[in-house]
Amino acid sequence: MIDPAAPEALAAGLLAGQRRALARAITMIESSRGDHRHRAEELMRRALPHTGRAIRLGISGIPGVGKSTFIEAFGGHLIDRGLRVAVLAVDPSSPVTGGSILGDKTRMAELARRPEAFIRPSPSGGTLGGVARRTRESLLLCEAAGHDVIIVETVGVGQSETAVAEMVDMFLLLLAPGGGDELQGIKKGIVELADLIVVNKADGDLAPAAERARREYTNALHLLRPTSPSWSPAVLKCSSLGGTGIEEVWTKVEEFRGIKTDNGELAARRAAQARAWMWGEVRETLVAMLRDSDGMGDVVHGLEGRVSRGEISPTEAARTAIAAFVDRNRPA
Amino acid sequence: MIDPAAPEALAAGLLAGQRRALARAITMIESSRGDHRHRAEELMRRALPHTGRAIRLGISGIPGVGKSTFIEAFGGHLIDRGLRVAVLAVDPSSPVTGGSILGDKTRMAELARRPEAFIRPSPSGGTLGGVARRTRESLLLCEAAGHDVIIVETVGVGQSETAVAEMVDMFLLLLAPGGGDELQGIKKGIVELADLIVVNKADGDLAPAAERARREYTNALHLLRPTSPSWSPAVLKCSSLGGTGIEEVWTKVEEFRGIKTDNGELAARRAAQARAWMWGEVRETLVAMLRDSDGMGDVVHGLEGRVSRGEISPTEAARTAIAAFVDRNRPA
Repeated sequence: MIDPAAPEALAAGLLAGQRRALARAITMIESSRGDHRHRAEELMRRALPHTGRAIRLGISGIPGVGKSTFIEAFGGHLIDRGLRVAVLAVDPSSPVTGGSILGDKTRMAELARRPEAFIRPSPSGGTLGGVARRTRESLLLCEAAGHDVIIVETVGVGQSETAVAEMVDMFLLLLAPGGGDELQGIKKGIVELADLIVVNKADGDLAPAAERARREYTNALHLLRPTSPSWSPAVLKCSSLGGTGIEEVWTKVEEFRGIKTDNGELAARRAAQARAWMWGEVRETLVAMLRDSDGMGDVVHGLEGRVSRGEISPTEAARTAIAAFVDRNRPA
Repeated sequence: MIDPAAPEALAAGLLAGQRRALARAITMIESSRGDHRHRAEELMRRALPHTGRAIRLGISGIPGVGKSTFIEAFGGHLIDRGLRVAVLAVDPSSPVTGGSILGDKTRMAELARRPEAFIRPSPSGGTLGGVARRTRESLLLCEAAGHDVIIVETVGVGQSETAVAEMVDMFLLLLAPGGGDELQGIKKGIVELADLIVVNKADGDLAPAAERARREYTNALHLLRPTSPSWSPAVLKCSSLGGTGIEEVWTKVEEFRGIKTDNGELAARRAAQARAWMWGEVRETLVAMLRDSDGMGDVVHGLEGRVSRGEISPTEAARTAIAAFVDRNRPA
């Protein structure tokens, strides 16, 4: 009998586009158990040749901007066009126990019901680096499972945006028509990551404010953002509730993808992201090996204290930590 | 006879405020020779208790903005007030052989002639990480030598601004009165680092344009920058040639320092910078140990190629690299 949790069986199922296999594969990726890690790698090995065809889209926006509603409307629109959509979340602020903000199961209920959609909450717990790694791997699994558009969503309030920008092809920032005051709630630097800004809630009473916000943001982008030779970030507006402007967002995404594919920037960006990811893993693993090495906890804690108090230079502290680590791993 | 290059002698000289000793101490810090590295650490150990009293000021601006002229006028003003000023440069773009852009000896000739000033070009060659480390250490040496204001200048076109922001108390961005078009030449994210923006060349024909630019930037900052609870970045204008506005810049710097000292943010920032520096050193050293380990060059090169072509997942590549590294360092 074939073990349904075996990497071969899971890979076969997810390559056939089975949601259940994809969900179980991601669960395996997210597991911190050592034997699961080994299986997860085998799974990734089998999935990898079938990745690369989807468009990877980061979507960020602070709570209250209507992110769920937008993704529901946008995802539904894409499915109506015959595309398969996956939605992943990066939300390192989620508590280890309870559900995460982004993982609330009542969100995107309509989209979740459609067989062409796959929605996965943020892996709970762990550092941003850990969450990002698992999300990157989940993204590749979704691609291998035949999804055409992978949306990685994140709350626009922390450092996770940079991590998301480093795993997607295009970064979309969602804003409400609150004008300048609203932009101030966005962590610095996030606006600079945006390839596309969408002013949501451009309907009813808010329609004039949305148009005003669109003009303001367009002006601010022009003032502060260097124009890339191949792409200038645009500001669009849409109504997720009314369904207007959604088509225009997709048109912009396709335009972006077309330009960046033709000039080779997309392939170069993905190759650079993969190399950076590899080196990030190398760095994190080595530092973790040092931290977790027997007796190193106290050494590191003591050095951090002395460095904070200015009693020892950071360079000397680093050298001391590494010497202690090497010493502890030397054969007796 | 005492060896004048011995750390004890150098430390004694620099603590006595001797320029020559400071210059030689920095040269030792910048050396990549193993035995120098050891002496450099001894030197830092002796200097460290005498650091922390200066204000550390990052100054950035693209070429042509009048950065040298500004620093000359600003530095001269501070010396007239009885302060001692050191100017360091971070410029990783400088070629290994020739002089760096920032290190041009004809720059700031007037300031360089004053005994209360110490000007040091960017250490040539090496990665940004290496340049940043040596600059951080030089900064501490300048403090130990009794300088009251340490200016770390950088060309506003690359990643070095982030590195500088991570070693200073306050980041000042210098702009010419070119308006929106000029801001576009600034690499994204740099404006967001600024605690203070100064529009230079506010004199003669350019005076109206400078005032217009000041208003534009003030508006843009308001729109895009989150206000810190304790500090909102201001936009000032000055004329380095006419000497106007320089006093106001220093007043703002002192205001910043007073607020951040009183509320404890300055001490917290410096402690966090020191810990981050230590961990950065740990990471870089460990990765360098892996890269430089016997036979690892080919392994790493091969893995990078396979990762770029999507043949192997970055996670697996990282694990493979680390396994090869550990294997090579295992006792036979």
